[in-house]
Amino acid sequence: MVDIANSTSAVPPTDDERAGALERQVDETLEATSAAASVEVDALGRVLLGSWAEVRLASREAMEDPQFHRIDNLTKEDHRERTLVQLKALADSGRVHRAFPEEFGGLGDHGGSIVSFEELILGDPSMQIKSGVQWGLFGSAVLHLGTEHHHRTFLPGIISFEVPGIYAMTETGHGSDVDAVGTTATYDEQTEEFVVHTPFRGAWKDYLGNAAKHGIAAVVFAQLITKGVNHGVHAFYVPVRDENGEYLPGIGGEDDGFKGGLNGIDNGRLHFTNVRIPRTNLLNRYGDVAPDGTYTSPIDSPGRRFFTMLGTLVQGRVSLDGASTHGAAMGLAIAITYGNQRRQFAGGDGEEQVLLDYGRHQRRLIPRLATTYAQYFAHDELLQQFDAVFSGRGDTPEAREDLETLAAALKPLSTWHALDTLQEAREATGGAGFLAENRITGLRSDLDIYATFEGDNTVLLQLVAKRLLADYAKQFKGADAGKLAKYAVGQAADRVWHDTGLRRLAQTVRDFGSTARSVSELRDTEAQRELLTDRVESMVADVAQKLRPASKLPAAAAQALFNQHQNALIEAARAHAELLQWEAFTRGLEKIEDAGTRQVLSWLHDVFGLGLIEKHLAWYLMNGRLSPQRAQAVTAYIDRLVARLRPHAQDLVDAFGFKDVHLRARIASGAEQERQDEARNYYAGLRASGDAPVHEKDLRKKR
Amino acid sequence: MVDIANSTSAVPPTDDERAGALERQVDETLEATSAAASVEVDALGRVLLGSWAEVRLASREAMEDPQFHRIDNLTKEDHRERTLVQLKALADSGRVHRAFPEEFGGLGDHGGSIVSFEELILGDPSMQIKSGVQWGLFGSAVLHLGTEHHHRTFLPGIISFEVPGIYAMTETGHGSDVDAVGTTATYDEQTEEFVVHTPFRGAWKDYLGNAAKHGIAAVVFAQLITKGVNHGVHAFYVPVRDENGEYLPGIGGEDDGFKGGLNGIDNGRLHFTNVRIPRTNLLNRYGDVAPDGTYTSPIDSPGRRFFTMLGTLVQGRVSLDGASTHGAAMGLAIAITYGNQRRQFAGGDGEEQVLLDYGRHQRRLIPRLATTYAQYFAHDELLQQFDAVFSGRGDTPEAREDLETLAAALKPLSTWHALDTLQEAREATGGAGFLAENRITGLRSDLDIYATFEGDNTVLLQLVAKRLLADYAKQFKGADAGKLAKYAVGQAADRVWHDTGLRRLAQTVRDFGSTARSVSELRDTEAQRELLTDRVESMVADVAQKLRPASKLPAAAAQALFNQHQNALIEAARAHAELLQWEAFTRGLEKIEDAGTRQVLSWLHDVFGLGLIEKHLAWYLMNGRLSPQRAQAVTAYIDRLVARLRPHAQDLVDAFGFKDVHLRARIASGAEQERQDEARNYYAGLRASGDAPVHEKDLRKKR
Repeated sequence: MVDIANSTSAVPPTDDERAGALERQVDETLEATSAAASVEVDALGRVLLGSWAEVRLASREAMEDPQFHRIDNLTKEDHRERTLVQLKALADSGRVHRAFPEEFGGLGDHGGSIVSFEELILGDPSMQIKSGVQWGLFGSAVLHLGTEHHHRTFLPGIISFEVPGIYAMTETGHGSDVDAVGTTATYDEQTEEFVVHTPFRGAWKDYLGNAAKHGIAAVVFAQLITKGVNHGVHAFYVPVRDENGEYLPGIGGEDDGFKGGLNGIDNGRLHFTNVRIPRTNLLNRYGDVAPDGTYTSPIDSPGRRFFTMLGTLVQGRVSLDGASTHGAAMGLAIAITYGNQRRQFAGGDGEEQVLLDYGRHQRRLIPRLATTYAQYFAHDELLQQFDAVFSGRGDTPEAREDLETLAAALKPLSTWHALDTLQEAREATGGAGFLAENRITGLRSDLDIYATFEGDNTVLLQLVAKRLLADYAKQFKGADAGKLAKYAVGQAADRVWHDTGLRRLAQTVRDFGSTARSVSELRDTEAQRELLTDRVESMVADVAQKLRPASKLPAAAAQALFNQHQNALIEAARAHAELLQWEAFTRGLEKIEDAGTRQVLSWLHDVFGLGLIEKHLAWYLMNGRLSPQRAQAVTAYIDRLVARLRPHAQDLVDAFGFKDVHLRARIASGAEQERQDEARNYYAGLRASGDAPVHEKDLRKKR
Repeated sequence: MVDIANSTSAVPPTDDERAGALERQVDETLEATSAAASVEVDALGRVLLGSWAEVRLASREAMEDPQFHRIDNLTKEDHRERTLVQLKALADSGRVHRAFPEEFGGLGDHGGSIVSFEELILGDPSMQIKSGVQWGLFGSAVLHLGTEHHHRTFLPGIISFEVPGIYAMTETGHGSDVDAVGTTATYDEQTEEFVVHTPFRGAWKDYLGNAAKHGIAAVVFAQLITKGVNHGVHAFYVPVRDENGEYLPGIGGEDDGFKGGLNGIDNGRLHFTNVRIPRTNLLNRYGDVAPDGTYTSPIDSPGRRFFTMLGTLVQGRVSLDGASTHGAAMGLAIAITYGNQRRQFAGGDGEEQVLLDYGRHQRRLIPRLATTYAQYFAHDELLQQFDAVFSGRGDTPEAREDLETLAAALKPLSTWHALDTLQEAREATGGAGFLAENRITGLRSDLDIYATFEGDNTVLLQLVAKRLLADYAKQFKGADAGKLAKYAVGQAADRVWHDTGLRRLAQTVRDFGSTARSVSELRDTEAQRELLTDRVESMVADVAQKLRPASKLPAAAAQALFNQHQNALIEAARAHAELLQWEAFTRGLEKIEDAGTRQVLSWLHDVFGLGLIEKHLAWYLMNGRLSPQRAQAVTAYIDRLVARLRPHAQDLVDAFGFKDVHLRARIASGAEQERQDEARNYYAGLRASGDAPVHEKDLRKKR
């Protein structure tokens, strides 16, 4: 507040003076608000383990067993066989059955099941995803879309892995648009059978785990047709291979071959030529056909029925959010450990500097560490919401919709973050990072597909955007006059400022000498929340207004209008997802009891929040939410925070709780430290011996 | 100009009015300046082939031969053997010897040699990089660092590939800082031999192609010590394996094992225990030791001598710039071809839309296409500069320094761009993109290491920054008063504007009603140049001023100051490199003769130039170079340009000139179009037959 007087000063400060003032204020703000910073690694680690800590630890411990570890340089054939054996071991362990009902040996523990599953990534992502296919997709479909008959008949074999299964939803021609799959299941009243059929090449089922080799039955999604009416996509239980592994009559397929990663999974294609299955193989929880061909459903609307069935997919998205966050954390644990040991180029004191002492290196890794922390907190909230819905404790249509929106928001960000972070970790560890022995490239290859499976990230963000638009529209439906007025005022105020630049002018003047307030306001949680929330709301309102004419346009023109703003819509959804992560991190901070740890985490939280603002700085400037001066303070403040966090970086990755046997990266095992110590000792000994050669450079200087 | 009157209007337009005006002006500007746009694909293709078109075409044609094609799902052992056979075939073809002197069967054609090499990426990047190790690094070192004796003795075996060789520079402990390698070569006057020795584990040579298995000789970089003086790093020719492939006495090593890519290359480690080689095995062009141990060099300064020797490395960077640009182009050719055929979700007219008709999909691929074009033009200029220096036609110290700076600027951007584009292509093609049969993931894995080998991208950008700072400082050394005054005025004007916001205010007013001018100015080449150049100059000046105190500080404090601004330095170098690409694209446009093609390319050029400005919009806003209104025009204008370019996207990737046999991606082979046609015909036939089932949804609507 002291500096405010300056704003009336007649002589404006120079650039250098202001830059100096900004840096001083950043430091003073930091000092004034800083407790003694130090991380209680174990306690923080327990917080990160989340709500199912014991389950997580048990699964993590199981991953210490070498039989579950990824082996590089296998052909896909060998890798597939190894993964198959791993799945049998998992089935025998009983660890992967938690979500199933108690009568089938499970625990009905939905959250814990996901948590347990997520840890499998520490062993081999192929094993994780093949498990996901078997128990998370194939088994879950039978559980959630089927009824008692299916549970009794099929679940035991699925759970025990006696029946490796296929989740046959996607087709070569239709992935994101499941509603339009080409496969048909036509009811034949004469024989009381469904006839499953693939009418053209594009309708082959494709990219299916277990399809190329191991799967002996499939849940097939097909258009249910009875009495000349197509009731939309339903799921059917279809045996596909006999006991010798040969296709059953009418069934054919193809191997998807080698892939960019996850080569322990035998992905493949399936097609059906008038394959007959009993009527009762329809998984009939949400739609049934009587022997006489009459269709019934507890859900009237075909659209809502479809989305309800697909809702079971959400657990895949929930678990990918957690697994990807783990992947990013592993990359950071490796790169930061190495960056604290590896030295390159002599610094000012003549000693070689460790990589993490370089400003650029810190900027590459520490903000990504902040995002990873945000994701851990956000993921735990997602897990809780998932568990509440799937356990039935909080299973309302609204809660399901919220859960689906939350998963659709978080999964894209975390899967992209994993790829981005693993790539940065790869480059930050140089040639060493490219060697499979250091783990990063294998993880990155395997996680690549996470960005487009279980819902293409871009499509998921559009689902989120759709929800945001719907919520926005709701404000006006039946809104009382007061609410509308409030909104109108908000808009009007915004417009005045847009049009005349008045608010910007005011802010410029206010910011002028008040660097202190600018900086301290930025670290204020409420100020960050306001900036982040305001952006989401403005972007949604902006797109909504631009799409307003759509309702009056012919379909094609409306589509064109929508298409023109598709990019903006997706960006609005991303902004919303970022805000959700930030909110979760903010709440997560409150769980930290130790003051020193809390101090460090609050810096990390600010790096995350201000990092989002920095990333979108152009928006804040263009829309007059930040003055140029304050915008500069954002970057300066992040720079200082990153430097503050640097000494705690190792503690922050250690708190992830991965052991060497989990990371299995030679450069993160202490080998680099040994090499550095040996080299330094060698040179010290040489100098002490007096035998060290003189450098020509030094000779020349002496001349 | 018509709208300028509005700026004095008393009633400011509303947001909607202004948004509408902006869109109209964007359209009008485009219309006013648009020739009939159409691409002459063949003619444009010839331009893209660049200055060594015939050599490039011949090498590209050779890559049609299946023996050179990458095969997936090989173990590293099998892949290595295949690559070895490919190299023998290349050696027999004589195609890889162009750069060597005529007396050894070459053509002394340096530019053509690089061009020919770049095309190998169409076969298998492992083959390309293993060739690069043999002829580009190992062979080049003998050629450029050795003298007649070495040429006569070693080159024939190197050229014929009878002597597969190793370029042993990098060590486990030192990659970017070659000056500090630990390996020593100590001269023994008694026996007239050098003793090559590895003093500790960190000094093992590492990541060396051909070292794990095939290499039988190596060029080893070691500290040359004679008469108790270390003369710095020099290169030595060292045999490492006997005719049976066994290590020679004193030599040991290790396999680097499986890698994130390029598994056709047998990377490995080597170490030396007092290995004796003849004195004459020192590659002595830039430094020699007489039989009595006396050291001499044509270059006095040890620093300059070191950089001269390392200068031979530049050809690796030049060729990676070209190969990476090819990699990005391949990814785009695959993704855009598929995007033009693949359909998903019904549009407004009920027909399923092709992916490339989606606004977001266009935004993902077309700006990356623009960057790829910029890189082709920039690369051709780099090649010409390289050829001038290496042919001796223009070999001055200044030209060499310029060449090295240019390569250091372009290589980071193009290698990162390849990774980014291949990843976007992978995601834009969904699950299909993840299959090896569609090529993208294999290319991405192989090109991953391009970002950190032959100079870590981050380190290279720092070299560029160093040069920028040096050039900046030169302005003041011996500057005449007039020049200095001009500079001072420039700075002062800038300061006034920074301090008072006067210029911004003025611009805001001017921009107010002059949307037309805002938009048309943005598409003006000079305006783009000014914006891009101004940013580079301002960033360099800004960092230079902040680093000014360094000269008066103690070493450690100076280092800390430098470190604090390392990030800003690297960003300045990146801005410089972007400007170089933009300038090359601008010059390249002039080579386009056909008016329709030129129109399309000028839009693509604007997407690239304005895309850079959009990427750095926050900087332009914070530093008052763009008003918020004009900044909004940037994005609006890019959006429209991207839509304009959409119909030409296929032509623009076809002009890259890759045949199916080069791309070898099933989804880009027309298979998707066949599937789409088949599906659409099926449904059309079904509708015509009258047997099509009615959709439940439609039934309900009718009720």
